[in-house]
Amino acid sequence: MPLSEFTLRRRVTFHEVDSAGIVHFSVFFRYMEEAEHALWRAAGLSIAARGANVGFPRVSAGFDFHRPLRFEDEFVAHIRIVSMREKSIGYICTLRKGDEKIATGTLTIVCVSREADGAMKARALPQEIAARFEVSTEAHV
Amino acid sequence: MPLSEFTLRRRVTFHEVDSAGIVHFSVFFRYMEEAEHALWRAAGLSIAARGANVGFPRVSAGFDFHRPLRFEDEFVAHIRIVSMREKSIGYICTLRKGDEKIATGTLTIVCVSREADGAMKARALPQEIAARFEVSTEAHV
Amino acid sequence: MPLSEFTLRRRVTFHEVDSAGIVHFSVFFRYMEEAEHALWRAAGLSIAARGANVGFPRVSAGFDFHRPLRFEDEFVAHIRIVSMREKSIGYICTLRKGDEKIATGTLTIVCVSREADGAMKARALPQEIAARFEVSTEAHV
Amino acid sequence: MPLSEFTLRRRVTFHEVDSAGIVHFSVFFRYMEEAEHALWRAAGLSIAARGANVGFPRVSAGFDFHRPLRFEDEFVAHIRIVSMREKSIGYICTLRKGDEKIATGTLTIVCVSREADGAMKARALPQEIAARFEVSTEAHV
Repeated sequence: MPLSEFTLRRRVTFHEVDSAGIVHFSVFFRYMEEAEHALWRAAGLSIAARGANVGFPRVSAGFDFHRPLRFEDEFVAHIRIVSMREKSIGYICTLRKGDEKIATGTLTIVCVSREADGAMKARALPQEIAARFEVSTEAHV
Repeated sequence: MPLSEFTLRRRVTFHEVDSAGIVHFSVFFRYMEEAEHALWRAAGLSIAARGANVGFPRVSAGFDFHRPLRFEDEFVAHIRIVSMREKSIGYICTLRKGDEKIATGTLTIVCVSREADGAMKARALPQEIAARFEVSTEAHV
Repeated sequence: MPLSEFTLRRRVTFHEVDSAGIVHFSVFFRYMEEAEHALWRAAGLSIAARGANVGFPRVSAGFDFHRPLRFEDEFVAHIRIVSMREKSIGYICTLRKGDEKIATGTLTIVCVSREADGAMKARALPQEIAARFEVSTEAHV
Repeated sequence: MPLSEFTLRRRVTFHEVDSAGIVHFSVFFRYMEEAEHALWRAAGLSIAARGANVGFPRVSAGFDFHRPLRFEDEFVAHIRIVSMREKSIGYICTLRKGDEKIATGTLTIVCVSREADGAMKARALPQEIAARFEVSTEAHV
């Protein structure tokens, strides 16, 4: 069964919090990526398998920050696939602490092949990867 | 003279690079913030002065990634103010390596007062801060 | 019952891995700290409770790295208290992946009071904290 | 002329500071590494040249923390080579802010070859690297 979403449960660690006492905004992008990679694992995949000849660089990422997270807060990061194209996947990620909506993120990744010289070239998603995912039918919150 | 832009020169450090050999996408948000804080210093300000009763949390941030940065690459992060409202400031940040456009970011911050219980409440930019900045008249690239 | 050790189970995330494909050495110190804070939580405490008038800066930290950790590796970080003095606590932390010993760390923290001007001054551990911990009797591995 | 030391000038950035208002202890290890890599560049080398068949993982690292660093503090990280063996290099790194000694670090790296399967095996320092460095004769501070 192809997957379209995943919910990661997480607790804020000390080094993620800045001097204003709230999680640094750059860290939300890491939370979103952790949820993405957990979605891939749930689909039986690794987004960066050793020796793989494809990679998945990010082409755009954004967050709207609604409320802060603080040290030791428990929260969930819910990620779902909102687009699948020949070479790219788009996600929306929502962070919540209990009933509070904390932040909403978007992320688009593209599939690339790796050339011998380190260059990356966009290519179609491998069929064995594309077959594991599908676009979420959940209404956009 | 109010300021509206700043250009930060920077070199990629080792721990900023991920296992694909390129700067991790979350780090671009730190580069943008470093450029923002350098703009504030150039204006004679600190965005997080010790003992300040105002703070500047981020309400939204995004990046489009055009080309990768690699270990020891030298690049510039050019940030400019594209909006100033009563309580918020908007920036656009462009990263370039030589003639290559690497990434384009956006950032919106809001001014908050800090309550005794740690709560943050939006408030007008202090006049002594607002007076140091103005919106860039540079054509949007 | 006072506590003297804790075992944290963790998986390596993508942004923790460097361009050599192994967890960056600075991240091991964050793993050790995560284990420490989990030990404090298990003892009913927060090492950085909001509004606390004491803090616990690190006065020394070190690691010997035996084997690398890679993306998505699962490992355990086992931390235990090896010394308790009037104002300080010493830990040893061992990271293992299955039967493999990955790294061995040491950490010493000191209790400080926070002055109004941000200065930190060493002071005795609060009794309600000291009472929750004791030195591990486990043989030093 | 072989090199044995380097002094890096640096300013504390916002995301490096924790909720206690001081640079997080894990970040000092990144400062030490930045100074090390700057030393290698000054010697005409890159510690992670693209396509290199050798790497330099860290086998041990430690810091004693004497005084805190805060947001926007300017400091210097002075690194010097204190040992060179067939397969390894040892450094001491001192951080100062003006006349204040902030922290003292030690770092040992080993030269490894990279096998096709990602395994790393200790090997002698390449002659073209060993020839660029020598042990510092500076008295140990």
